[in-house]
Amino acid sequence: MESLKIRPQVQENIDNFLNEQKLILDNVSPAAGQMINFAKDFLSGGKRLRAAFCYWGYKGSGGAGETEILYAASALEFLQGCALVHDDVMDASDTRRGKPSIHKRFEHLHQAGKWAGGEELFGIGGAVLLGDLMLSWADQMLLTSGIDEVALRRGKNLYDLMRTELMAGQYLDLYSQAKGGGSIEEALNVIRFKSAKYTIERPLHLGCNLAVADAELIQSFTDYGLPLGEAFQLRDDILGVFGDPEETGKPAGDDLREGKRTVLIELAFKGATKPQMMILDELFAKADLSPTGVNQLREVIQATGALEKVESLINQLFEQSQSALAVSSITAEAKTALSELAVAATSRRL
Amino acid sequence: MESLKIRPQVQENIDNFLNEQKLILDNVSPAAGQMINFAKDFLSGGKRLRAAFCYWGYKGSGGAGETEILYAASALEFLQGCALVHDDVMDASDTRRGKPSIHKRFEHLHQAGKWAGGEELFGIGGAVLLGDLMLSWADQMLLTSGIDEVALRRGKNLYDLMRTELMAGQYLDLYSQAKGGGSIEEALNVIRFKSAKYTIERPLHLGCNLAVADAELIQSFTDYGLPLGEAFQLRDDILGVFGDPEETGKPAGDDLREGKRTVLIELAFKGATKPQMMILDELFAKADLSPTGVNQLREVIQATGALEKVESLINQLFEQSQSALAVSSITAEAKTALSELAVAATSRRL
Repeated sequence: MESLKIRPQVQENIDNFLNEQKLILDNVSPAAGQMINFAKDFLSGGKRLRAAFCYWGYKGSGGAGETEILYAASALEFLQGCALVHDDVMDASDTRRGKPSIHKRFEHLHQAGKWAGGEELFGIGGAVLLGDLMLSWADQMLLTSGIDEVALRRGKNLYDLMRTELMAGQYLDLYSQAKGGGSIEEALNVIRFKSAKYTIERPLHLGCNLAVADAELIQSFTDYGLPLGEAFQLRDDILGVFGDPEETGKPAGDDLREGKRTVLIELAFKGATKPQMMILDELFAKADLSPTGVNQLREVIQATGALEKVESLINQLFEQSQSALAVSSITAEAKTALSELAVAATSRRL
Repeated sequence: MESLKIRPQVQENIDNFLNEQKLILDNVSPAAGQMINFAKDFLSGGKRLRAAFCYWGYKGSGGAGETEILYAASALEFLQGCALVHDDVMDASDTRRGKPSIHKRFEHLHQAGKWAGGEELFGIGGAVLLGDLMLSWADQMLLTSGIDEVALRRGKNLYDLMRTELMAGQYLDLYSQAKGGGSIEEALNVIRFKSAKYTIERPLHLGCNLAVADAELIQSFTDYGLPLGEAFQLRDDILGVFGDPEETGKPAGDDLREGKRTVLIELAFKGATKPQMMILDELFAKADLSPTGVNQLREVIQATGALEKVESLINQLFEQSQSALAVSSITAEAKTALSELAVAATSRRL
């Protein structure tokens, strides 16, 4: 896919960067060098959506050259790496893309070595630190991309905002889930900051800022990116409930067990009849929910009409995003790529 | 104390910066804005050693002006904030400077609200995210300090190295503690990266890089800073075992319960007679060690000669550091301040 042609170069940038960092870590201790192996494995593959949106935000704003923007865009994969590694610690999720999460991998090291102290705490410690390293490496990569100082200053300011919004959005997600019983508006606000801005709008803005200072283009990227980002997360929420474990890399019904208060779930609660509500109250957020229970919940969510409503919301947001793209002054080449990416991000068949 | 005169300005910089960030967090959600209150409280007071070393590294290299370097130096307090908040998560430490640690404070929020899900996991989540914010804010502050671009580029490169060494050193600390039974050389290597470089040498280098590019000065700061940093950590290790809880802000004997493999402890194991070894083996790293047990261990550590050896090592490193300072071409004003800071850092009577 043309829109994702950047993937091999992003991978190469990440690997080369990690090879350089390994020298520093090995100098501290070969044990620390081991962290690089985990990082390499974790950061190999993936859709590279954020890097792609950053790249096309740059190209779509008329930015020239390839090497520097590809290096800068690769930085977002480190930010995303930190977000995922720390997210798995916060959720106590044992798997990520069908493989053990990073804290589990450190736990396994501890078990294999028959070391002293709690293996769980060691796992958390290793994952917190590797996430911190990835967060550090992200801005390091951005700032050593070779993009000129003035553009880089604009880009770094945007990156600072994006990073703070991401962490705040993650906290809002934790908070809403703990507080429970929120509104659809609250669930949409979580989506906006945790995902829509962070995954799509801000990477586009970053790319744009690295090319030019142009308020009209920034607005166009918002008009295209925000609704698309919301649609992207709504699709993700559907997959979290109805998705195939083969495709999602997570056990079926994990979001139901965790009690994630997504728009889909809020709509189900809102639209439920009394008998449906009894099932929701009994089974939703039940930590030891059985496969039968997962199926019961799926049926209820469908029967309340929540699934259909979310699918229709996704379509509506997708169309809104495409219309905004069409009327914008984004370059033609980027329009084609962004249109392609919109399909990829909302159908999730990458 | 002249060497610590920067403290009020550092505090003001931190508070102003947090007030600006609060607008972004409140815009995400008032719930997220709450994180700022925890950050303000956590980052108020403290010795500001790292900021002070950065400031005097700058002044000692002939750097001009006050506002910009004081802003840049304040950034290190955010890095340190992240290190402490995440360290408490990794150690499962409930207190910090005699007050609840950040993950405990988030736990209390959860309890007070009678929220759903595990309060412990919520506490970890809040602390991981607030630490991530502090780590992000550190480089943001450094790069918006107003120092000129060329010097800032040199400074950021050094900062990147410092940050990676810090995380790797923290991991080495976790690893050594888990692996157990290391050598004195290993314990000294942990000290070097986790503390000596991070607390003293690298902040001095950062300040120097923000002023000039001068390899001779960098070497002088290493010659002064590395032995001093090791002495600083050795003093900290002694306080971790023999310190007054009033002074350390931690329960007596906490390091003994946690089983920290410090130089002091490695020397005690190395110098122990058979009966002493039996006590060490029985009580060291015992999670539920009683106050009587703490006293027994203290007596053994003293009787093995380990305490005396570490005190003598501190003196030796301190003298080495002072001699290096005397023969360097660091400015006279900074020499006076750094000499004062050396006493403050190793006697820990701030």
